[in-house]
Amino acid sequence: MTDLLITGIGELTTNAVGLGDDVADPTGLIRDAALLVRGGRVAWAGRAADAPAALADAPARHRSGAETPAMDRSLGAQAVSRGEVRVVDAGGRAVVPGFVDSHTHLVFGGDRADEFEARMAGVAYAAGGIRRTVAATRAASDDELRARLGRLTAELHAQGTTTFEIKTGYDLTVDGEARLARLAAEATGEVTFLGAHVVPAEYVDDREAYLDLVTGPMLDAVRPHARWIDVFCETGAFTPAESERVLRAGIVAGLRPRVHGNQLGEGEGVRLAVALGAASVDHCTYLSDADVAALAGSDTVATLLPGVEFSTRHPYPDARRLLDAGVTVALASDCNPGTSFTSSMPLMIALAVREMGMTIAEAVWAATAGGARALERSDVGHLGAGARADLVILDAPTRTHLAYRPGVPLVHEAYRGGVPLR
Amino acid sequence: MTDLLITGIGELTTNAVGLGDDVADPTGLIRDAALLVRGGRVAWAGRAADAPAALADAPARHRSGAETPAMDRSLGAQAVSRGEVRVVDAGGRAVVPGFVDSHTHLVFGGDRADEFEARMAGVAYAAGGIRRTVAATRAASDDELRARLGRLTAELHAQGTTTFEIKTGYDLTVDGEARLARLAAEATGEVTFLGAHVVPAEYVDDREAYLDLVTGPMLDAVRPHARWIDVFCETGAFTPAESERVLRAGIVAGLRPRVHGNQLGEGEGVRLAVALGAASVDHCTYLSDADVAALAGSDTVATLLPGVEFSTRHPYPDARRLLDAGVTVALASDCNPGTSFTSSMPLMIALAVREMGMTIAEAVWAATAGGARALERSDVGHLGAGARADLVILDAPTRTHLAYRPGVPLVHEAYRGGVPLR
Repeated sequence: MTDLLITGIGELTTNAVGLGDDVADPTGLIRDAALLVRGGRVAWAGRAADAPAALADAPARHRSGAETPAMDRSLGAQAVSRGEVRVVDAGGRAVVPGFVDSHTHLVFGGDRADEFEARMAGVAYAAGGIRRTVAATRAASDDELRARLGRLTAELHAQGTTTFEIKTGYDLTVDGEARLARLAAEATGEVTFLGAHVVPAEYVDDREAYLDLVTGPMLDAVRPHARWIDVFCETGAFTPAESERVLRAGIVAGLRPRVHGNQLGEGEGVRLAVALGAASVDHCTYLSDADVAALAGSDTVATLLPGVEFSTRHPYPDARRLLDAGVTVALASDCNPGTSFTSSMPLMIALAVREMGMTIAEAVWAATAGGARALERSDVGHLGAGARADLVILDAPTRTHLAYRPGVPLVHEAYRGGVPLR
Repeated sequence: MTDLLITGIGELTTNAVGLGDDVADPTGLIRDAALLVRGGRVAWAGRAADAPAALADAPARHRSGAETPAMDRSLGAQAVSRGEVRVVDAGGRAVVPGFVDSHTHLVFGGDRADEFEARMAGVAYAAGGIRRTVAATRAASDDELRARLGRLTAELHAQGTTTFEIKTGYDLTVDGEARLARLAAEATGEVTFLGAHVVPAEYVDDREAYLDLVTGPMLDAVRPHARWIDVFCETGAFTPAESERVLRAGIVAGLRPRVHGNQLGEGEGVRLAVALGAASVDHCTYLSDADVAALAGSDTVATLLPGVEFSTRHPYPDARRLLDAGVTVALASDCNPGTSFTSSMPLMIALAVREMGMTIAEAVWAATAGGARALERSDVGHLGAGARADLVILDAPTRTHLAYRPGVPLVHEAYRGGVPLR
């Protein structure tokens, strides 16, 4: 694999403390920067002026002998081959780590555009809407689900998302949940078992039997494909006691816990997530002071999903309150057909800045390093030495444009493991 | 020019009254539709089942003799040549008229990302911010302005905008305003003279002298390149009397009037626009009942610019109130570096639905036919027979997805005059 040197970076967000122009900057921002990729990982990041020294240390891997610079027409940015190192000139553009979308539901059948349209006309959202997608998903073939997932994956990549999680939870039978997990695992290593998404229609009169299924045969069938166990701890979904039972069964089976909670009202989701050492508690729209304090005293990330509030007209969560209390905040899309059918991490950043009191630096960090924390990943979400070379060259001179230019596609080029995504 | 038949359209928005499945539907929506383009114009639109009859009427123009269907790899949609008619299968996707963005400021130097970031942190917007862009624009060369304009034009096209207006107003000298109008005219026929954008710094102590310039030598210099005269009628910009003087001078010189008004507070902008028969009054955030009644009794369009409210945190205009009163509403981006640096008409639609009480049908109409009304254009903004074949094939089965999937790039292919834009 040829080394890759990206030069001419107007502004590089590394999220590596101590690497930035200001050593105290948590986003490790370097102006006039360059980045060296070796073996798909970041070998060096720093000021462009210091790049020649870094280059001199690079062993010759693919000495092509071709000394004549040749335009690589497949790249918008100017790329020339210099023998052992491929050089890409970012032309003053900003570079950020690839977005880490730690909360999606990308394997599903049908859509719920009619429900969205009705809600915008004034009809309230009911959690039971999930059951419509369950019916459509059960009816879909593997190929249909795989085709949809492929289109959505391409859509995420085109918008700069280089790592994403996918939840099950739209089948709610043993074989069906295993099927969704298997299909999700074809697209990502971050698969979450969400059999406890909602009690399916056929079990509404016997919740205990459904919980036995989720914590028994269904868990056994899904476990080989999954890394995470999740539960929707909310009025209308699962009670705190039921949620705890689900999470504990998953933990015993070797899965790491995460929680959907505090979306539609205050509740026990946050308390439970912190008590069980969950990586993340997602939504966090309605929080008590005790919830905020519990999060601040824990390693559990508060993952905020502003696409949901945009698409349901619920009030946005107060990110400022969480950040001021010292809570680690992530942003994710919650891409799903019911309450947030967006996959745009740039729009999540813009909404976080417009609606949730986050600064641009905080929002970009939350959509990259924050997502990585929520997935307990140290290899993505930053561009310090050793990180996987997942990055986005923006069609903009600064990351500020992600909020300053809402809705505009600003991904010039995205790389994963040092390889262009297209 | 080969005829073009687009078949397999899941849902076609024609905006042609009487053409839709429901004859009373102002958006003329046809399901399972097809569209025939001849000579760059819509020759026929209707149900796909009726397309063969329409095709039989098509004279053979380019009989290629190649009967073997050949994939056109440059198109995402399947395209085959059938002798005299090129056939594109939209694959069930929705088609809408190309977006008509009737309010932009695309010729400028510099940006104001720092001002945006400060505002998001709590600093109020002052109209004087325009003067910063004036300084940067004066300092920019023709080539610099042309390069920026070219990038923004490509960006608009990629987002489905096929007609757009551009205002001057970032130079405010005679030669400079003429230069901006000339450059704008290289990109569009819809150029607006906005010498009365703000009083430039060098005239703050002699407003009358600046008005003499705007209504005299500057108007004479710009007029050959422009179709419209505009004024920013607002506290901090121009008084109602000054605004009327500017508009009347433009009208005498053969320009059609439009007005920036009622953005930052109630004022005389709407009254003036209606009194002078302006095509549109833009912003309309603060309206009295008398303003609404005046608009309803006129042909003047109320153009709403939700990108401004998104980017300034001002309250969104109440589109529902206007629509319920019978006012014609348009949506536009106001793409400019100070208060709305977005060019995304899809996001304007999503914001109109989320924040302004518009239905999806109303928002799509406002972003297409509404914009055309605001520019007094009958050839664009609809897909009835005779219209210029400006259209967008969406990566979605219905237009609802433009609001249901906020921030996601949904333009599969855009055509202008029957020719793909790319």
